[in-house]
Amino acid sequence: MKAPKLASLLFQIWFIIAFAWAVPAQAAAKLPNIVIILADDLGYGDLGCYGHPTIRTPNLDRMAAGGMRFTDFYVAACVCTPSRAGLLTGRLPIRTGMAGSEKRRVITQKDNGGLPPDEITIARALKPKGYVTGCIGKWHLGHLPQFLPTAHGFDSYFGLRWSNDMEPNPKIPKNASANLNQDPKWWNSALLRNDQIIEQPTDLSALTRRYTEEAIQFIHANKKKPFFLYFAHTYPHVPLFASKKFKDTSPRGLYGDVVEELDWSVGEVLKALRDEKLAENTLVFFTSDNGPWLIRQLAGGSAGLLREGKGSTWEGGMREPAIAYWPGKIKPGIVTRELACSLDLFNTCLTLAHVPIPTDRVIDGFDLSPILFGSGTSARDTLFYYRGDELFAIRKNAFKAHFQTAPGYGTPGIPVAFEKHETPLLYNLANDPSERFDVAKDHPEMIADFQRELEKHRAALVPGKAQY
Amino acid sequence: MKAPKLASLLFQIWFIIAFAWAVPAQAAAKLPNIVIILADDLGYGDLGCYGHPTIRTPNLDRMAAGGMRFTDFYVAACVCTPSRAGLLTGRLPIRTGMAGSEKRRVITQKDNGGLPPDEITIARALKPKGYVTGCIGKWHLGHLPQFLPTAHGFDSYFGLRWSNDMEPNPKIPKNASANLNQDPKWWNSALLRNDQIIEQPTDLSALTRRYTEEAIQFIHANKKKPFFLYFAHTYPHVPLFASKKFKDTSPRGLYGDVVEELDWSVGEVLKALRDEKLAENTLVFFTSDNGPWLIRQLAGGSAGLLREGKGSTWEGGMREPAIAYWPGKIKPGIVTRELACSLDLFNTCLTLAHVPIPTDRVIDGFDLSPILFGSGTSARDTLFYYRGDELFAIRKNAFKAHFQTAPGYGTPGIPVAFEKHETPLLYNLANDPSERFDVAKDHPEMIADFQRELEKHRAALVPGKAQY
Repeated sequence: MKAPKLASLLFQIWFIIAFAWAVPAQAAAKLPNIVIILADDLGYGDLGCYGHPTIRTPNLDRMAAGGMRFTDFYVAACVCTPSRAGLLTGRLPIRTGMAGSEKRRVITQKDNGGLPPDEITIARALKPKGYVTGCIGKWHLGHLPQFLPTAHGFDSYFGLRWSNDMEPNPKIPKNASANLNQDPKWWNSALLRNDQIIEQPTDLSALTRRYTEEAIQFIHANKKKPFFLYFAHTYPHVPLFASKKFKDTSPRGLYGDVVEELDWSVGEVLKALRDEKLAENTLVFFTSDNGPWLIRQLAGGSAGLLREGKGSTWEGGMREPAIAYWPGKIKPGIVTRELACSLDLFNTCLTLAHVPIPTDRVIDGFDLSPILFGSGTSARDTLFYYRGDELFAIRKNAFKAHFQTAPGYGTPGIPVAFEKHETPLLYNLANDPSERFDVAKDHPEMIADFQRELEKHRAALVPGKAQY
Repeated sequence: MKAPKLASLLFQIWFIIAFAWAVPAQAAAKLPNIVIILADDLGYGDLGCYGHPTIRTPNLDRMAAGGMRFTDFYVAACVCTPSRAGLLTGRLPIRTGMAGSEKRRVITQKDNGGLPPDEITIARALKPKGYVTGCIGKWHLGHLPQFLPTAHGFDSYFGLRWSNDMEPNPKIPKNASANLNQDPKWWNSALLRNDQIIEQPTDLSALTRRYTEEAIQFIHANKKKPFFLYFAHTYPHVPLFASKKFKDTSPRGLYGDVVEELDWSVGEVLKALRDEKLAENTLVFFTSDNGPWLIRQLAGGSAGLLREGKGSTWEGGMREPAIAYWPGKIKPGIVTRELACSLDLFNTCLTLAHVPIPTDRVIDGFDLSPILFGSGTSARDTLFYYRGDELFAIRKNAFKAHFQTAPGYGTPGIPVAFEKHETPLLYNLANDPSERFDVAKDHPEMIADFQRELEKHRAALVPGKAQY
């Protein structure tokens, strides 16, 4: 009589274990949704949760409180086009021909190039797994049809092909700078749906609201499928426009109005996910493409305690606010000081969707899952800071060596002052995040190591065909 | 039969109401405890919740998340002695003779003065209501017996009379600067209990731990009475010393070790209050005495996006992190942008203890209760920025006029460069918190108003007898 009892007990134990395991297994059957929200020219110091005193960002602050906030999150380049190329492909822009040069650092109307058709974007990589892929907002990776989002793995597109200062009204006064022209009549931006222009000029003050409505609609429409939404805002890039609801409301002036409207937009996206009961199966990741455009004065943002801004390889140009949110998967209220980069979003998204990382090309990203889900530390210990097609600096763990430095932008009429450093400048970013004290003299062995790292990187690098 | 039923019902209703009201009424019978924790030379940008990337302050961050964080909290002066005099008396230091002068900005060993005996500190004001009053840490309001905490309304004192760099070992090399002497043998600080020296030299690396143990003991010993604890840390003022547990642990180096030990200390104080079930009857307020001592380089802190630091009347010198915590009374997670000042702590403490504000002298503070408890806005719209005994700047609402400017400290050997501004510099601190863009030209009417404000303030001012 004992044997059958034991068998029954074992069966019960097996049943409990099998059932307990079956729940996560079933849940895993629906692949997670992924939403990447990208601001444009937002500085490291521009959000409440990163210490800004007068820009009010309650939704992003709550997102950080309910998720993970990064202190050391970088972008792939210090200006728009290469930064976005890096984020979507996981490859240093120099490899994809998207790095630009000192002469032209982003794609303009004069250029016929764009992200090469054989590059694999996150969207393209996720398609075979049944993902619905949407791109909303600013693209800036080529304006000819063969380079648009719909040619790069996105099922749909709604937004501007490039920056909002790139289609001025031909009547715009020649001596006027973009940040001073917050008057709609000076702008002639074309709004696209998929690969067709649907409006020109479009109302720049309605953009954030309309983008947001599109994003919410996308979420509602695709609630039953896994989806990937790349939501790349036009703002706070100049010229700044906010909708009526936000205009003249922020203590930080128009720049604040615009950032506070972005914050509202993030809140709406999170609400749509909650309403559809998708929040617990969706990774939402918020960051920006590069640092604040300091020469735009009050129409540009703040890098907080970091040095310099957009266009420069000082920290202010490439270190960004970054918040990851996934209730139930990412623990709330975590501040991570792990080294991470927008290049890593490629690997992270593919890993979450069970897509193998391509092996036929160099991929520069690392999977962020161990950081996000608390199972480990960053696989990344090195970071490359390019300005155009030139490598200016390398960070390894806490130390950063500058082989060359320059301000992000020159004063009009005065050329940018470049400085080549035969002995690189060396900063301990952990102890000295504002890059104030060069410690090269104290660390000759480290300088030698950085020089070797530079040579190794250069020797192995196969640049892509320059696209502009 | 109906009348008795109605009467019974009414009685029941009355009983419920009376009982519901009786609970808060009884709770109010015990006056609230008040704990003010003051750091020394901590910068606006030095805490995690104010955006510092590498200083880890989980306890202060949690305190902010569970309470109220101020963005626009100021101190009464840009250096130690006058700032503390203002905090404890609610009076501008110029009125109490504690403002110092450009020649000597804090009390030193050479001075025989101190906070005059007829000034009313928070401690003295609270005594008649039965408060037990304790002072732990740095005093710096006069080192002669008649000026010590025990002569100013505090039942007990444990700490250093002044800054930790003010009692060097006579053998200290003359060309060494304080921040380079983080070696215990160079220091000869006296530790006092009440008005007696109990150790000299005292171990500077044990100070934060010992202060904290004293604070916890004070809380345990006085759990049945209302108490006021003024806990004024010695750090992160140079020379920096951390205990073994914190030494060499922070990515931010020794400065980070020291701030992270302060953060630990705050956690221990909050824990002691919770353990004694006092948290819900205690206001805890954390701030610092002035901005970061920038000339101390990495041994000094960061003002984040604010301009300049300690010793200056730019924002970095006088705007400080400030966190108020009182579970059940202060709503969690609130960021307030109301204008507030350490002078206001005097009025706030007296109001909480039902002590009338003195009417025989000018009090410069305002009660912060409406801000803290969400019942209203700040009664303060004006702020005076003194450097020594000279008024350098005035803030009114969002605008600040500088009549004179100077860096906090000069480079050794080079005198400080003072600039008098016939037309004051004008900054909109809401739009331009980093004080980058002088807008005086756009607001002639405001400039005239500030000039009138200056004259009015000067005309009404009766300076106290200079104490040093």
